[in-house]
Amino acid sequence: MSLVKPRTPPGTLELLPLDQIAFQGMLDVIRRNYERFGFLPVETPAFELAEVLLTKSGGETERQVYMVQSTGSIKQGYEADLALRFDLTVPLARYVAEHEHALNFPFRRYQMQRVYRGESAQRGRFREFYQCDIDVIGKDQLSVRYDAEIMAVIHAVFSELKAGPFCMHVNHRRLLRGFFRSLGVATGEAQTLVLREVDKLDKRGLDKVRATLVEGEFGMQPDQVDCLLALVARRSNSHAEAIGMLDELGSHNEELVQGVQELREVLELVRALGVPEGCYCVNFSIARGLDYYTGTVFETILTEHPDIGSVCSGGRYENLASHYTKSRLPGVGISIGATRLFWQLREAGLIGTADSSVQILVTQMDAALSPAYAAIATSLRHAGINTEMTLEPGKLGKQLKYASKAGIPFAIIMGSDELNKGVVQVKDLRKEEQFEVPRADLVRTLQVELEQVRALKRTHP
Amino acid sequence: MSLVKPRTPPGTLELLPLDQIAFQGMLDVIRRNYERFGFLPVETPAFELAEVLLTKSGGETERQVYMVQSTGSIKQGYEADLALRFDLTVPLARYVAEHEHALNFPFRRYQMQRVYRGESAQRGRFREFYQCDIDVIGKDQLSVRYDAEIMAVIHAVFSELKAGPFCMHVNHRRLLRGFFRSLGVATGEAQTLVLREVDKLDKRGLDKVRATLVEGEFGMQPDQVDCLLALVARRSNSHAEAIGMLDELGSHNEELVQGVQELREVLELVRALGVPEGCYCVNFSIARGLDYYTGTVFETILTEHPDIGSVCSGGRYENLASHYTKSRLPGVGISIGATRLFWQLREAGLIGTADSSVQILVTQMDAALSPAYAAIATSLRHAGINTEMTLEPGKLGKQLKYASKAGIPFAIIMGSDELNKGVVQVKDLRKEEQFEVPRADLVRTLQVELEQVRALKRTHP
Repeated sequence: MSLVKPRTPPGTLELLPLDQIAFQGMLDVIRRNYERFGFLPVETPAFELAEVLLTKSGGETERQVYMVQSTGSIKQGYEADLALRFDLTVPLARYVAEHEHALNFPFRRYQMQRVYRGESAQRGRFREFYQCDIDVIGKDQLSVRYDAEIMAVIHAVFSELKAGPFCMHVNHRRLLRGFFRSLGVATGEAQTLVLREVDKLDKRGLDKVRATLVEGEFGMQPDQVDCLLALVARRSNSHAEAIGMLDELGSHNEELVQGVQELREVLELVRALGVPEGCYCVNFSIARGLDYYTGTVFETILTEHPDIGSVCSGGRYENLASHYTKSRLPGVGISIGATRLFWQLREAGLIGTADSSVQILVTQMDAALSPAYAAIATSLRHAGINTEMTLEPGKLGKQLKYASKAGIPFAIIMGSDELNKGVVQVKDLRKEEQFEVPRADLVRTLQVELEQVRALKRTHP
Repeated sequence: MSLVKPRTPPGTLELLPLDQIAFQGMLDVIRRNYERFGFLPVETPAFELAEVLLTKSGGETERQVYMVQSTGSIKQGYEADLALRFDLTVPLARYVAEHEHALNFPFRRYQMQRVYRGESAQRGRFREFYQCDIDVIGKDQLSVRYDAEIMAVIHAVFSELKAGPFCMHVNHRRLLRGFFRSLGVATGEAQTLVLREVDKLDKRGLDKVRATLVEGEFGMQPDQVDCLLALVARRSNSHAEAIGMLDELGSHNEELVQGVQELREVLELVRALGVPEGCYCVNFSIARGLDYYTGTVFETILTEHPDIGSVCSGGRYENLASHYTKSRLPGVGISIGATRLFWQLREAGLIGTADSSVQILVTQMDAALSPAYAAIATSLRHAGINTEMTLEPGKLGKQLKYASKAGIPFAIIMGSDELNKGVVQVKDLRKEEQFEVPRADLVRTLQVELEQVRALKRTHP
């Protein structure tokens, strides 16, 4: 039989077990913090009815959609009527509209699942990747205070992820529009176009954006463009400076006033929620590409790795599910692209291979003692200790080498001498030390040792 | 704009949040126990290259495969070259073959992901469902002791799932073949056919299977068929009886002897691993439909719900990845179909809606006290308590009713009187009791209360 070369499709990230443990650890941190703030879990099917998923007309998104069809359906000549989700927002809209009467509003949900995009293959770009989203959905209305709570969640997640210092950059779409209006960019369309230009600042650079805004269709006055670009170049360095930047914007029109007021309320509550002021700043250049957002917008930058770009973005939107229901469902949410984040943190050297999830290896010195080894393993497992047992005969040295290589911190060794004396040998594979423990004290001793390993990791990750 | 009716595709199970919490709890139990026995996590992409996934020729499986293709690729007239996994075994084979040199053998992995089958829609049958698999893969060889360890894992999982009493039914394919040979069913093909007939006992009934074996192509002697059917009707009721049933089989041929010896070793180690003898039995009617298995085979039956069928099945196989590598990779594994299990346990009334993952609601009595409410919520969250905060103004009664309905056990109430006195009111929404606690004692008090709720749940689930 000729062999098929085993390989994964391009654009997928498959990990070896110790890397998977590290990745799982990241997902666990995100999930734990989402739950800590009272968000409820939702999972949706990987595929949706194409008719339901692809309600928006054409465009970039649809070209990247993966269609799904069973081989039976293909043979019968049908067209594909299923599609893999490309984000978690459209499934959320469908979910909330479908289950509207069974949900409590404001509905606070988290969802951590893979999404699929038929993007062109490219290093660091994924066709399958985890998104970890939270959203709060109101019925008819939703207090701007939820925007602040979302920021507190981002702060909690990234504080625990240990990806180094970070800063949440905040802006407000209405504020930005009001400011544009004060500069003479009056119509909604013109503002949208200017917002898009501002959004390209990072990619195109100041000069090109400046030239575009002065020339051609925009035709803004050079001094107005300078005023605009000066504003978007600023970042607040403290809570007081952030509030000061808002005050300086004045009150030229109602949009501006309303945007400033909302953003101020958000920032005050963010502070009250205990987020240190070094972790957030006002940044008027944040616009977010999507026209979808209507109020607060967030991006999160790792201070020491700005090149990675935003690791957690989102904002406030007017109406989640207008395609599916007449109910008005305003919301605010964010998304962490966990696969990309993990890959980038690993590339940046911030994430190493994890320790094994296995804590103890019960070695096999003498096959005749198998029942005694089994009894030890069982007692450790009952005490909540993740325990692997050697079941193949083999040299002890080889077994210990395996444990070291596999990242297992401790091995239990017992021959008939130890069995008769009622003791076991514990080998600390990190310190290369070995000590004797009475059988009766084994669980307690290992719990203490494992707690020390954990404590050491907390202080020297 | 005309509305699209929000709905999920047939054959998918989407849950409301409290059901999702219950389901997540089931997955957590499975994962925790898999890790407790030293299994390492693996995740593979949802889709594989069709050429890699569909190595086996034709048959039922291929007709049920979902092909995947991006809209861009469809427009360019290409054929679909991706397919969704239909189980976790083929991806495991591909994974082990692909990463063979980076893995330690015996390789012990767990994998809990969704799989996809284009089955005809039918109540209780799913097109997307979770499988939770463990396998141990050896290189060249793998001790039969691992079969016993797998049974200890099943025991640990189902003991904690609280799905009522259960029994692991065990058999051995080689033993069964040897026994058939002793009855004159000599060739491998005839044995395979007889095995398939035995496998149909549950569905077709004793008489029909008996008639098929006596008549036509099988042409077995009636007394031999009676001997066979008497044997497969027996179940051991204790460890001693299980061993006795093995001894009674005699030693007519080498296959039989070897099978008996292996199954005896498995059962002895299962007992040494602390599995109570009421939780396993020898059942010679277990054959498992797949020709894939070559040694020990398992099925797990919920004693009070035999109609559900096997909730956890698997067995020993000769060679995992012969399509991808020349290495011989024997293994043993099991699979829990978690989506189907959850659905069935819920149908049987064994699983109710879970309590909320939210533990505390900090209500809003007076919007002016928001910073104080935020400070309380933050202190609870820092203490690891899942806390939701009311951020919309509203009547206190309505807030408390919401908490009750949402399954949140405790609410915090604080007006300016309490703030000035340095206390808060804690409302126990189950007991409909309210008590006052000094702010400084709040975290500790709630930790005690929540521990009592947990303890009560453990004794009266």
